[in-house]
Amino acid sequence: MRPAPVLRFSPIIYFMAKVLTILVDSPDEKGLIYKITGILYNRSLNIVKNREFVDSDSNRFFMRTEVEGVVDECLLEEELTSVLPDQSKIKVVSDRRKKLVILVTKENHCLGDLLVRNHFKEWNADILAVIGNYDVLKSFTEKFNVPFHFVDATNMSRDMHEQAMLKIIDGYAPDYLVLAKYMRVLTPEFVKNYEERIINIHHSFLPAFIGGHPYRQAYLRGVKIIGATAHFVNNSLDEGPIICQNVIPVDHSQNASDMARAGKDIEKIVLAQSLKMVLEDRVMLSGNKTVIL
Amino acid sequence: MRPAPVLRFSPIIYFMAKVLTILVDSPDEKGLIYKITGILYNRSLNIVKNREFVDSDSNRFFMRTEVEGVVDECLLEEELTSVLPDQSKIKVVSDRRKKLVILVTKENHCLGDLLVRNHFKEWNADILAVIGNYDVLKSFTEKFNVPFHFVDATNMSRDMHEQAMLKIIDGYAPDYLVLAKYMRVLTPEFVKNYEERIINIHHSFLPAFIGGHPYRQAYLRGVKIIGATAHFVNNSLDEGPIICQNVIPVDHSQNASDMARAGKDIEKIVLAQSLKMVLEDRVMLSGNKTVIL
Amino acid sequence: MRPAPVLRFSPIIYFMAKVLTILVDSPDEKGLIYKITGILYNRSLNIVKNREFVDSDSNRFFMRTEVEGVVDECLLEEELTSVLPDQSKIKVVSDRRKKLVILVTKENHCLGDLLVRNHFKEWNADILAVIGNYDVLKSFTEKFNVPFHFVDATNMSRDMHEQAMLKIIDGYAPDYLVLAKYMRVLTPEFVKNYEERIINIHHSFLPAFIGGHPYRQAYLRGVKIIGATAHFVNNSLDEGPIICQNVIPVDHSQNASDMARAGKDIEKIVLAQSLKMVLEDRVMLSGNKTVIL
Amino acid sequence: MRPAPVLRFSPIIYFMAKVLTILVDSPDEKGLIYKITGILYNRSLNIVKNREFVDSDSNRFFMRTEVEGVVDECLLEEELTSVLPDQSKIKVVSDRRKKLVILVTKENHCLGDLLVRNHFKEWNADILAVIGNYDVLKSFTEKFNVPFHFVDATNMSRDMHEQAMLKIIDGYAPDYLVLAKYMRVLTPEFVKNYEERIINIHHSFLPAFIGGHPYRQAYLRGVKIIGATAHFVNNSLDEGPIICQNVIPVDHSQNASDMARAGKDIEKIVLAQSLKMVLEDRVMLSGNKTVIL
Repeated sequence: MRPAPVLRFSPIIYFMAKVLTILVDSPDEKGLIYKITGILYNRSLNIVKNREFVDSDSNRFFMRTEVEGVVDECLLEEELTSVLPDQSKIKVVSDRRKKLVILVTKENHCLGDLLVRNHFKEWNADILAVIGNYDVLKSFTEKFNVPFHFVDATNMSRDMHEQAMLKIIDGYAPDYLVLAKYMRVLTPEFVKNYEERIINIHHSFLPAFIGGHPYRQAYLRGVKIIGATAHFVNNSLDEGPIICQNVIPVDHSQNASDMARAGKDIEKIVLAQSLKMVLEDRVMLSGNKTVIL
Repeated sequence: MRPAPVLRFSPIIYFMAKVLTILVDSPDEKGLIYKITGILYNRSLNIVKNREFVDSDSNRFFMRTEVEGVVDECLLEEELTSVLPDQSKIKVVSDRRKKLVILVTKENHCLGDLLVRNHFKEWNADILAVIGNYDVLKSFTEKFNVPFHFVDATNMSRDMHEQAMLKIIDGYAPDYLVLAKYMRVLTPEFVKNYEERIINIHHSFLPAFIGGHPYRQAYLRGVKIIGATAHFVNNSLDEGPIICQNVIPVDHSQNASDMARAGKDIEKIVLAQSLKMVLEDRVMLSGNKTVIL
Repeated sequence: MRPAPVLRFSPIIYFMAKVLTILVDSPDEKGLIYKITGILYNRSLNIVKNREFVDSDSNRFFMRTEVEGVVDECLLEEELTSVLPDQSKIKVVSDRRKKLVILVTKENHCLGDLLVRNHFKEWNADILAVIGNYDVLKSFTEKFNVPFHFVDATNMSRDMHEQAMLKIIDGYAPDYLVLAKYMRVLTPEFVKNYEERIINIHHSFLPAFIGGHPYRQAYLRGVKIIGATAHFVNNSLDEGPIICQNVIPVDHSQNASDMARAGKDIEKIVLAQSLKMVLEDRVMLSGNKTVIL
Repeated sequence: MRPAPVLRFSPIIYFMAKVLTILVDSPDEKGLIYKITGILYNRSLNIVKNREFVDSDSNRFFMRTEVEGVVDECLLEEELTSVLPDQSKIKVVSDRRKKLVILVTKENHCLGDLLVRNHFKEWNADILAVIGNYDVLKSFTEKFNVPFHFVDATNMSRDMHEQAMLKIIDGYAPDYLVLAKYMRVLTPEFVKNYEERIINIHHSFLPAFIGGHPYRQAYLRGVKIIGATAHFVNNSLDEGPIICQNVIPVDHSQNASDMARAGKDIEKIVLAQSLKMVLEDRVMLSGNKTVIL
């Protein structure tokens, strides 16, 4: 017998229905959906959206459920843990606004797109700051009343530069870092501070044209389609889990810089679409791949 | 200790594990997934794939579940019916091969594509016959050892022609009729014989360019993209539930017949993709819309 | 003998090579390319890009040529006129920066995209002003140092409102008006002031879902693809010559407002791409269709 | 006064108007279009279609012109040669039907598509024979009255096998060889016999996933889009000039074999579209890239 809800909430908050997102990543076995939905049913939670996926390679079960109702998140997480197999990862996410920090270098198209969306509150999230290793985007960023931090890399070791960046970033305690055409490679030491929480936009259809100058490479190879890839950053450059990709046709009349210009439009859209899915807690990780539910 | 392998090949089919697809379309209410998966869990059925959708306009719940295990389909259907709300539609579909009859007029691209796929057993289904209101595709069809019936419409009322068609079609007891560029309008009387089981490919991006000569219309309107639409046929011409659509870019240099030629490639692919989804029991109907799970 | 160049240019400008764009729209006949390129060759102009198209329906010839060299535009235009058939339209366009005025209502995504591009000088053009029939985008516009004029339509006849708008617009003498989700219908009287110079973005894949609420219509029809169309505005609502279209896939899980949100990304990209082509003088008109060279 | 109509149907074929395609690939210099169109004008040839391109990297000029009229092809070629710079390549191509030989292994989708198109005379070309290193597609091919040659590679050196293939191929004197999922690597010795005349379909979005098992690679990498690439074969495996590419979206729910199945539809369409452009003499080569006019 558990009277917890009475104790944990004031009478007013207790009665407010809210939307919670439940994320389950567990070893697959018979009866998982039954057990999970049983708990939700007993707690009178209404399932608004529900998606599952079984990765038969790794034999893991993924589930994302949106429920409406009155419940304490921690208790729900505990209860789910009690019925699910060992080595399950369970997250119950409330709909609080998330916090973002953006990293940039010199290119404006992705940053511009993100700042406009942020200004008009397109997401349930806020851009707290923009950090650049150049200062060319400073005044533009500040038009939107978002602070811009210029962290010059000249005369600094990579390590010192990253430490200087981290110090600023950590001050904002962001949920996610967004690399909006940040053109420096991040070290594994940096990445591990925000593991599975750094989103990058790469200006090619990965894994084609890994590394720098992908449009030049695409032009020289004579491809008829170019693309953009948004992915989580892990230790291997350009090899983290892919979130979203898109492409546009090109032809022989476009040179490398025409392709770069044309590519900007899909880069910014692919980045924004990926960020939207991440902010809606729809992107789960299965090894080096994403499961989008 | 279970001596099943010995039994497995006994004449008693009842004990053979198989894949079943469970389709539920019911009024939405709390606990549906819990109740359904409870039955599956108690019967030791393993859920291989599962998708749900709630249409908040009609307040109906849709679910498609693939399970593996040993079960009698009728008993399972009954048991599910007993826990689900009134006005639920429940289907438990075994993986028997489905039967198709194709209707054509003169154009060969869709028919050719379907016959090649059928020849190489791409689907869990068979084309039993092709029926044409012209005979130009007869010898081509027969190359594939599929019977071709020529039902000439000259000197026949629409009604008589449809009756003549139906007599042949009914003889094959097909699960689905596929209109592979069959260019005559079907009457409501004809359609009701195969309600929700007639699939048509329309050579435009519906609802643009309803009716005849869509490529001519598209050319005259100067569109920059053309499309194809596969849909179920209902009583209103070109207005049945859409299953799949696709498009290709066009430009000013293409006249109506260039567009028609270019459109053929997407027509045949869209039709084949739609048919594949229908044959996999992935397409459910919600009013005049499809829910694809 | 014609000493005009000496008189018309100062000695310094005279010797500066420049890029000119020559646009020819004439009745088709044998030898046109030969005659036109002959003039260019004799004037030592180097052809950088060249595209032609013959509309066999109207029997008209379209040509767009970019040349580099030293030449007086008016003289070149005269000389071309002298060799081309009657009823030819010849334009020699210099690469001067063009002037834009934007019209908006309440939605921000197209305006935001245009203002960012304008801020970073993406085009050989400048946004001189934004005019709205609501003032919700005023402070946003002014962040970019672009004047915003609020022309309230309340308590005004359509005619009076358009006159008030025109007065402001005419003051800027723009080359093009861009309707960036301006949600009021323009009268033929208004349109004729900027004939063939008003670009609109329509939030559907025209000619499907003409008129208001296209996403609602698309949702109700259950389409699997939605689109956006940029077109020149003529007297018939939503029926002017189409410049560019694009689409994105949707599915049953997206309601009308999800589709509207998803559609915004293609609306802004399609509008920007169309505007880019118009500003590069690549869009010619052939009746109610565009020829893009 | 010209009594031509009387002559036009005389036995002297020389005087029959026909469509010729003129292909020019020459060093770029001022006046090329003027000189070429001058010859055409003087010979009373009517330009039906005309496209040019200047590759500013290699400084070469490419032109494809379709003309109607009465002319001897060799004389025209000579006359064009006389006015064009040294190192120009000039081809005047009549509209005779071209000859194709298809190479296959075991997969049927590309072959099936090509044979249906060939059967219904979709191109101005004929498939003369199909050659396979397996015999599984023999009876299927023969349904279409196209000879199938089985050249078994077992117990043969690569060299011996290619010699055996070549002997058969050469007997047909084809204009183009089409590798319709021919899964053996061709040696440079083989390729040089049909240089710039072998078209391959590669089952990935080159240059991603070069080599074997691209769908497996794509699955493991977790890409969200897969593609197909048609290209000319040169000495480096999968690195010849790309003619056409296309893509389809995939998601986490598709494993490697689902992707392979989905990919087949674009493979066959991309191959057919590329072949169509090649057969229309629209594909020129500029180094390792194609120029498509």
